[in-house]
Amino acid sequence: MTTQQSTQRFSTAVTVVGLGPMGEALAETLLAQGHPLTVWNRTPDKADGLVARGAHRAATVADAVSASPLTVACLKDYDTLYGVFEPAGDALAGRTLVNLNSGTPKEARAAVLWAEERGAEYLDGAIMVPPPLVGHPDSVFLYSGSRDVFDKHRAALAALGDPRYLGSDPGLAVLYNTALLDMMYATLNGWLHATALVGSANVSAVEFSELALGWFMPTVLDPKSLLAKAPDLDRADYPGDLGTMDMNLNALDHIARTTLEQGIHPDHPRLMKEIAEQAIAVGHGGHSYLSLFEVFKKKPQTH
Amino acid sequence: MTTQQSTQRFSTAVTVVGLGPMGEALAETLLAQGHPLTVWNRTPDKADGLVARGAHRAATVADAVSASPLTVACLKDYDTLYGVFEPAGDALAGRTLVNLNSGTPKEARAAVLWAEERGAEYLDGAIMVPPPLVGHPDSVFLYSGSRDVFDKHRAALAALGDPRYLGSDPGLAVLYNTALLDMMYATLNGWLHATALVGSANVSAVEFSELALGWFMPTVLDPKSLLAKAPDLDRADYPGDLGTMDMNLNALDHIARTTLEQGIHPDHPRLMKEIAEQAIAVGHGGHSYLSLFEVFKKKPQTH
Repeated sequence: MTTQQSTQRFSTAVTVVGLGPMGEALAETLLAQGHPLTVWNRTPDKADGLVARGAHRAATVADAVSASPLTVACLKDYDTLYGVFEPAGDALAGRTLVNLNSGTPKEARAAVLWAEERGAEYLDGAIMVPPPLVGHPDSVFLYSGSRDVFDKHRAALAALGDPRYLGSDPGLAVLYNTALLDMMYATLNGWLHATALVGSANVSAVEFSELALGWFMPTVLDPKSLLAKAPDLDRADYPGDLGTMDMNLNALDHIARTTLEQGIHPDHPRLMKEIAEQAIAVGHGGHSYLSLFEVFKKKPQTH
Repeated sequence: MTTQQSTQRFSTAVTVVGLGPMGEALAETLLAQGHPLTVWNRTPDKADGLVARGAHRAATVADAVSASPLTVACLKDYDTLYGVFEPAGDALAGRTLVNLNSGTPKEARAAVLWAEERGAEYLDGAIMVPPPLVGHPDSVFLYSGSRDVFDKHRAALAALGDPRYLGSDPGLAVLYNTALLDMMYATLNGWLHATALVGSANVSAVEFSELALGWFMPTVLDPKSLLAKAPDLDRADYPGDLGTMDMNLNALDHIARTTLEQGIHPDHPRLMKEIAEQAIAVGHGGHSYLSLFEVFKKKPQTH
């Protein structure tokens, strides 16, 4: 136990508030890595297992915040955050609050002001992995807001995963988080819709997915090849020599017609075709498919 | 030249009809691999380079078809196919036509009947790689229709890439092709929309994509992990213990609200949220997100 004791001597004491599945994973990880840990949860017995392994259970949120220089909040949303920490009153003064719930950028920016009024330092963050991956060194955690606060607590944050500082705008962590989920759902929907399309001809999901996910996704849709095209988006430069939006509209029209012919859910292909048409309407017919980025950046006039 | 001559002696003579960028890549590959090659194109001088390297230029489609047991057609669509081959008349009898244009499954099935009426064997196919990758051993070509025709010409088809036989329904190759493109566009749109979302806070496409494509896509959205879930779709078994559709609807609602708050194109997130709501309306609220597959399999009642 000597090693753990000597680790504890130099590790920041941390408080975790909110012991849902994610909060519990954060607390378990901090405890396992030798951080003196205080926990608080609205339903106190959620902490029983952690207390049995050495965590301190605080009776009130004020006590919880007072126990450590750093408090990590893992709650449902910003309204819950305010409701839980309001009773802590002056205890927040001089402490650091790292908030990991999701919300909108505006909500994250408002939380900084809320914390400032209480004399607390504040950092906003987002967890990009499911609870079982908390604590792995390549599990990305996103943070934004004060660089000083991030630097001061980097060692404790690094216990949870790979901490990435995105910038001083406190809204960046939740915005990145939202964008990554946006991409995730679009990709999942694409796979599920494509599988339903071949399923209309009695092709099994396993048979199609072996080709779609086992071959097509890692080769034709290789993330590294897409990444190599990202500078085109920043330059708004969309050469159409390897294929134009007009050609892609043909393919999208074809997907939409096939979806109708096979009698499956038609809305996704229909919308993708409409958006390509919007791109062509504003002059991208001869540009590459990536010029769709210009359409996505704006709210359409008709909305 | 001895090696090439001896290869030619045992290689099937092949005719390629249609010398757009893809047809030209097919012809170049067959020529390079020692197949006696005849070509025909509506604009004859498109064949000049191939003829200089040893291909035979047919004066008419009838001559082209007569020159080889196997003709590969690479044209715009099925109507073009009929228009080009109609003048060949009796020359098609006893020959094999492998058709690689895209279309709908119904169009592919109709082409089999059209070929049968002319006494020709027919195989429908789809090319899943861009022209520069034709001829690579892991470039997938999809085929469906007669197994006998596929087996008879497998060696010549293998010169073009990795030939995959999907089944006797001639519509399968174009249906797989359409589904893979459906998935591709959904994935691209997801990346572009997510990049536009962070772009609204002046994050560059390169900076976001390094995280989104360099880390998130290959780890959290790892195709192998998705593939492992494909059996759930075939069993229509969607345990919600790691996250329910209700929880995912919260996240989708959050994405939709953030998209509006940031002032970018709102239609994709709005549709994804609507489809999750449709899933919940038919009883999948407590199931995993993959239960969306059940929604995609059907045309909604309201359409």
